Amino acid sequence: MFKALIFVTLRESVLDPQGVAVKNSLHSLGYQEVQEVRIGKQLEVLISCENRSEAEQRVREICEKILSNPVMEDYTFKLEEVA
Amino acid sequence: MFKALIFVTLRESVLDPQGVAVKNSLHSLGYQEVQEVRIGKQLEVLISCENRSEAEQRVREICEKILSNPVMEDYTFKLEEVA
Repeated sequence: MFKALIFVTLRESVLDPQGVAVKNSLHSLGYQEVQEVRIGKQLEVLISCENRSEAEQRVREICEKILSNPVMEDYTFKLEEVA
Repeated sequence: MFKALIFVTLRESVLDPQGVAVKNSLHSLGYQEVQEVRIGKQLEVLISCENRSEAEQRVREICEKILSNPVMEDYTFKLEEVA
């Protein structure tokens, strides 16, 4: 069994209106020192695979096909074996 | 200037309906080996502070007051000095 910690973030060149909204809220609440906010997703996926390379391949496939939008988003992940 | 990478996740004991929905979609798309999915937020916050301890304090305050809901969520963050 493997645990994949997946991070899906907007590409640098893509505007992040949700991040801008949070930044503006922080400013209006007195946190003027905040310069930029960008928001992404973190997914924790438990996957039962025989070995690490199989798990890696499955997680990559899931990320590319389903969990991220490759036009606008990048993903990275870490795999960890769990009992 | 510091960059804070903040992770906000649902507490273990809190149900994650969004994660369950993603898991069910993955199953119906043929990824039966996925056992569990939990979804959180990742925030990248640029903050201009004099020193690390001030930045740490401000980020902690922002996390507790605004970015997370302490009843249902936990947060962790990493601070990194940037140019």
